[in-house]
Amino acid sequence: MANKFSEELFLTNATGRRLYHTYAEKMPIIDYHCHLQPQEIAENKEFEDLGEMWLSGDHYKWRAMRTFGVDERLITGAADYHEKFLAFAGILPKLIGNPIYIWCALELKRYFDIDEPVSAKNAEEIYQKTKALIRERHMTRRWCMEHSNVKLVSTTEDPIDDLRWHKQIQQESFFTRVITAFRPDKAMFLELPTFDEYLGKLADAADMQIGSFHDLLAALEKRLQYFKEVTGTTVSDDGVPHFTWADYTDAEIEAIFQKARKNEALTAHEVDQYQSAFLFEMARIYKRNGYVMQMHIGTYLDANTKGVKLVGQSTGFDCTDDQCAVTSVGELLNRLTLAGELPKLILYPLDGTKIETWAVLAAGFAADGEGRGVKAKVQLGAPWWFNDQQFGIARQFAACANLYPVSLSVGMLTDSRSFISYPRHELYRRVLCNYFGELVERGEYFSDEEELGAIIEDICFNNVNEFFGFGVKN
Amino acid sequence: MANKFSEELFLTNATGRRLYHTYAEKMPIIDYHCHLQPQEIAENKEFEDLGEMWLSGDHYKWRAMRTFGVDERLITGAADYHEKFLAFAGILPKLIGNPIYIWCALELKRYFDIDEPVSAKNAEEIYQKTKALIRERHMTRRWCMEHSNVKLVSTTEDPIDDLRWHKQIQQESFFTRVITAFRPDKAMFLELPTFDEYLGKLADAADMQIGSFHDLLAALEKRLQYFKEVTGTTVSDDGVPHFTWADYTDAEIEAIFQKARKNEALTAHEVDQYQSAFLFEMARIYKRNGYVMQMHIGTYLDANTKGVKLVGQSTGFDCTDDQCAVTSVGELLNRLTLAGELPKLILYPLDGTKIETWAVLAAGFAADGEGRGVKAKVQLGAPWWFNDQQFGIARQFAACANLYPVSLSVGMLTDSRSFISYPRHELYRRVLCNYFGELVERGEYFSDEEELGAIIEDICFNNVNEFFGFGVKN
Amino acid sequence: MANKFSEELFLTNATGRRLYHTYAEKMPIIDYHCHLQPQEIAENKEFEDLGEMWLSGDHYKWRAMRTFGVDERLITGAADYHEKFLAFAGILPKLIGNPIYIWCALELKRYFDIDEPVSAKNAEEIYQKTKALIRERHMTRRWCMEHSNVKLVSTTEDPIDDLRWHKQIQQESFFTRVITAFRPDKAMFLELPTFDEYLGKLADAADMQIGSFHDLLAALEKRLQYFKEVTGTTVSDDGVPHFTWADYTDAEIEAIFQKARKNEALTAHEVDQYQSAFLFEMARIYKRNGYVMQMHIGTYLDANTKGVKLVGQSTGFDCTDDQCAVTSVGELLNRLTLAGELPKLILYPLDGTKIETWAVLAAGFAADGEGRGVKAKVQLGAPWWFNDQQFGIARQFAACANLYPVSLSVGMLTDSRSFISYPRHELYRRVLCNYFGELVERGEYFSDEEELGAIIEDICFNNVNEFFGFGVKN
Repeated sequence: MANKFSEELFLTNATGRRLYHTYAEKMPIIDYHCHLQPQEIAENKEFEDLGEMWLSGDHYKWRAMRTFGVDERLITGAADYHEKFLAFAGILPKLIGNPIYIWCALELKRYFDIDEPVSAKNAEEIYQKTKALIRERHMTRRWCMEHSNVKLVSTTEDPIDDLRWHKQIQQESFFTRVITAFRPDKAMFLELPTFDEYLGKLADAADMQIGSFHDLLAALEKRLQYFKEVTGTTVSDDGVPHFTWADYTDAEIEAIFQKARKNEALTAHEVDQYQSAFLFEMARIYKRNGYVMQMHIGTYLDANTKGVKLVGQSTGFDCTDDQCAVTSVGELLNRLTLAGELPKLILYPLDGTKIETWAVLAAGFAADGEGRGVKAKVQLGAPWWFNDQQFGIARQFAACANLYPVSLSVGMLTDSRSFISYPRHELYRRVLCNYFGELVERGEYFSDEEELGAIIEDICFNNVNEFFGFGVKN
Repeated sequence: MANKFSEELFLTNATGRRLYHTYAEKMPIIDYHCHLQPQEIAENKEFEDLGEMWLSGDHYKWRAMRTFGVDERLITGAADYHEKFLAFAGILPKLIGNPIYIWCALELKRYFDIDEPVSAKNAEEIYQKTKALIRERHMTRRWCMEHSNVKLVSTTEDPIDDLRWHKQIQQESFFTRVITAFRPDKAMFLELPTFDEYLGKLADAADMQIGSFHDLLAALEKRLQYFKEVTGTTVSDDGVPHFTWADYTDAEIEAIFQKARKNEALTAHEVDQYQSAFLFEMARIYKRNGYVMQMHIGTYLDANTKGVKLVGQSTGFDCTDDQCAVTSVGELLNRLTLAGELPKLILYPLDGTKIETWAVLAAGFAADGEGRGVKAKVQLGAPWWFNDQQFGIARQFAACANLYPVSLSVGMLTDSRSFISYPRHELYRRVLCNYFGELVERGEYFSDEEELGAIIEDICFNNVNEFFGFGVKN
Repeated sequence: MANKFSEELFLTNATGRRLYHTYAEKMPIIDYHCHLQPQEIAENKEFEDLGEMWLSGDHYKWRAMRTFGVDERLITGAADYHEKFLAFAGILPKLIGNPIYIWCALELKRYFDIDEPVSAKNAEEIYQKTKALIRERHMTRRWCMEHSNVKLVSTTEDPIDDLRWHKQIQQESFFTRVITAFRPDKAMFLELPTFDEYLGKLADAADMQIGSFHDLLAALEKRLQYFKEVTGTTVSDDGVPHFTWADYTDAEIEAIFQKARKNEALTAHEVDQYQSAFLFEMARIYKRNGYVMQMHIGTYLDANTKGVKLVGQSTGFDCTDDQCAVTSVGELLNRLTLAGELPKLILYPLDGTKIETWAVLAAGFAADGEGRGVKAKVQLGAPWWFNDQQFGIARQFAACANLYPVSLSVGMLTDSRSFISYPRHELYRRVLCNYFGELVERGEYFSDEEELGAIIEDICFNNVNEFFGFGVKN
């Protein structure tokens, strides 16, 4: 058994290997959706150690440690990163088949040139070696981004964010362009007890009164324009845990909005109506402001409420909803198409088992049968969250190329809180080239290699650059 | 990279290759479900050009072109087939992984002996070359069918169709036997405003009054007997977009029927009741008339209503329903079994992600526990529409052989509007033999090759011939 | 084509082969969930013939025979096992891709050292040969278990069972330890007309009055403690055909219980409430008595009611429910976690197409964010029923290792009524090692082989031994 990292990782056929090393490897990265903290980018501190790099904010690893019965103190608790690193290293060899295993291997190789597998036996040695390298190379946040050839990242902020760190970053000269996505979820979750309080903050941020649903939309549009003004962004981020389309009238929405502000109980149907109206109107706002809408669909957030209460949201206690109907999102797209108001839109369904049904939906709304369309107007995003690994990515290619042109895809994103997660783009590209190589070797594709090379470069970089209008130079 | 069509397409193992070339390749084709126009068969004109052959009526290609932002004029609009062909050829190299790519490759090879890949560069040259060949060989509709060794095709007509073209075809001597499937969908969609008008036409066709649900069934049965009389058919085609079983009484159905005739609003439950009754009664009619019932389940028709309004139905704006319950169809099968009225039945679920659950359902109704059963009485059809490509076919074999004997399958059909889509049978057979080859090479099958050869020949031809009672000579 | 059983079955890569033969093959078997009859173990008779071994109680084979139109007389009817064997042998070569084919091949090889494929041609010869071997070797029930290196089996009994055969078995010295699982389903199905009658029997068994839901729980707990006392078991078996979580109050449950006892009609919501309360309370009972809860979720039992009426329950007329919501089971887990009452729990969802969504759910409830957790506390069980073959097992590994550590799995079980179904463990181990071998050969795993060998041995034997606290010596 090989006992070191292989540069032919995932590449099981000769064509795929050649395609990867010739076309994909060299392309720069646009990470158009992540959860980096702009403050960290602005302050640009050196990392403490590999413990901080790997275990700070990474709920994938926390969740895995919990399945092994590790004490929460060593996961998100009071232990220091040295201790946490050792605890994590102990389970790493047991994570066979899990993306954490291969992400760690890629990160060790790409940022520290370490080939060997981590285990309880060499954990302390690797800890010390990487700590010394961090000091020696002054590995800061920005160092990691530049080292990974990242030309652009988009963080994600709430409409009420003042973007102070983003403003600071814009004023500096830096290899990576930094923008932010506009994420108005809190204005959609009207059933939360904090809704009214949130609207107060939004009113302050937008410097206007919010007395009606119409006002709310106006405030959001003001903030969205501010986001664009400060960072030049064209990126939205809409979270849609569960969505059931429900018809509504403007008067109904206004009444629901007023009840929500007073914390009065809402029926499930009223919540559905409000969400339908909210997403419809936000789509219109995105369209007229040149944004791309990104819908993240079908989360089962905070499934384990005790865990959330003790450790916090987004710390590993979320699951996947299996009840979100494709037809409900379809009705939203249909209404927007009828109204001539459908923006460019990327669908990220969380339930990977139904990915094909979503690909079919996207293709059904590529155009409206009138005149010249927009290339890949509605498309399927990169496999998301529980699906963003070799299996999920390979499945999406194999299952969905039949249903939606994979060559139009805007490619991978990290969705990550980590500054060293960029090898996920490498993973994606390897799986992509391996898939294409298989098609070639099975006789399923025999066009000129020039065509195929261009497709690969498009998926890795050009498509996303064009779709969002980033104008990044390669 | 190979730059020409390969005769080993899809065949990744030596056993599979041998099986394909020895047993499958030579078998004639029975295309027991397609959407050819009988008028075209009757008139038997030569094709204009490859543009007409490829782009007339093919909503798969239209849909793909739309995702590339191609102007609708060049898709379904006023442009001529030469222009449309060039527009389509331009995107073809980008359709990697999509069945359109490989269907086109197979069609070029089988009908024009062209090995090379099509692209913008050689599109005009290929256009002219194929046009010349069409003229030279007098490539008519029937030429394509005979050239493909097609022994029988079944078109699909509405009960009100007078079958004039079919009658004309029956009177001629022709290599391919032509029959038609009986498709009574319009009598099921009672919520449509055209329901009453349709019943009027049906009454005329059946030469009787339709004053009740009972009359409606009688009229349908008269027409079904007429279809059998004219073409000798035993094929039904039932479209069931979304189906929820709902108990009913005869009196309720009669009342619902009368409301529908008057265009009165129906509740969702009433529609469910009517559809339950309609499918139950049609199944009984099929059984007593020796028809095979074919249920196409779970479409999300006309999802993009603007596209449908501008371009028409079945032009690429349909999607897949993900909400059709297996248990609802199960209840229909159960009621029919209890009543001793279950006909031979083929299930075509559109949601390929749930294909296994449907295979389990089919196997559960293979027999009723009494006496001698009917071989493969309820079975899973060939992967349908969005699933009728290498991925969908290979998945169905791998996933469903565990649940339902694949050796009993009635095999592939084109479901196509095209006269040169018969290579889809070749594609299916290649994937089948490759799958069997893998099983053999993994040690999962080691019976005599004679047994395996017979299974392949059965799936390609004999099973369907026997199941429908076509009596076609091989 | 090879024409005999291969010892490299399923093993398509060199690493996998080595891993299987080095680490997996030698491990003993713990079959912690099966449906053997304890009376048969106690009486320990020699088998009549291979017909009895293969066709007595095996609804997989019955179902397959029905799809071939075999007369029910030769399936479950009056024919003798010799005749039935010949009828079954005739279809066996047609069962390509079906687990029955490979199970039979493995069983012939492991119990009779027969390498050759069975067909109509050699059926009589194999029948006689195996019959002679059964006599010669005195192949009894226990012979099969010992021959297969089975260290422990757990049968399944109803709470009212007096465990007389189990008591008898405990008094004898025997290679295989025999325990039983506690299966309280009949106390959950309160909508059945036999509910009240069943409670009467349970009251007798527990030697107490059952006048309330509280009494019912007390009686069940008494019986559960009796099961542990007699056999030392820690195994539950809960069948949950369809489950919708519904909030409830104690008073509501009590009222529902009283209505059910009187056979009064219950609403669907009342049934949901009762099932929610029942599973919540049973989980608490399991936890305080050190049992592992095993939930079998999403069956569509008795789908074909005519078949059930004529042949009986569990004879091949069941299907898969596709409507059971992951979020409903999630709410049950959440309530138990909040109450600090969640036992160790194994989820067996029947709908294999949604297996990933269940793996995500399990991982979300691995811990509650407080202190030290329990290793693999909530986990996904081995692929079940319609999924317990190469496809289902390989899929679960590939799809779910991303979502839940496969190295923590308690591995395979037969769930079988047969004494020669233990090669299903071999099948599972082969698929496991092949999967691991592929990961290694793709560069996705490169830790020390020692680590990987230990993982394999854990999944085959150690994990289940530790998780249930069996304390079996390897």
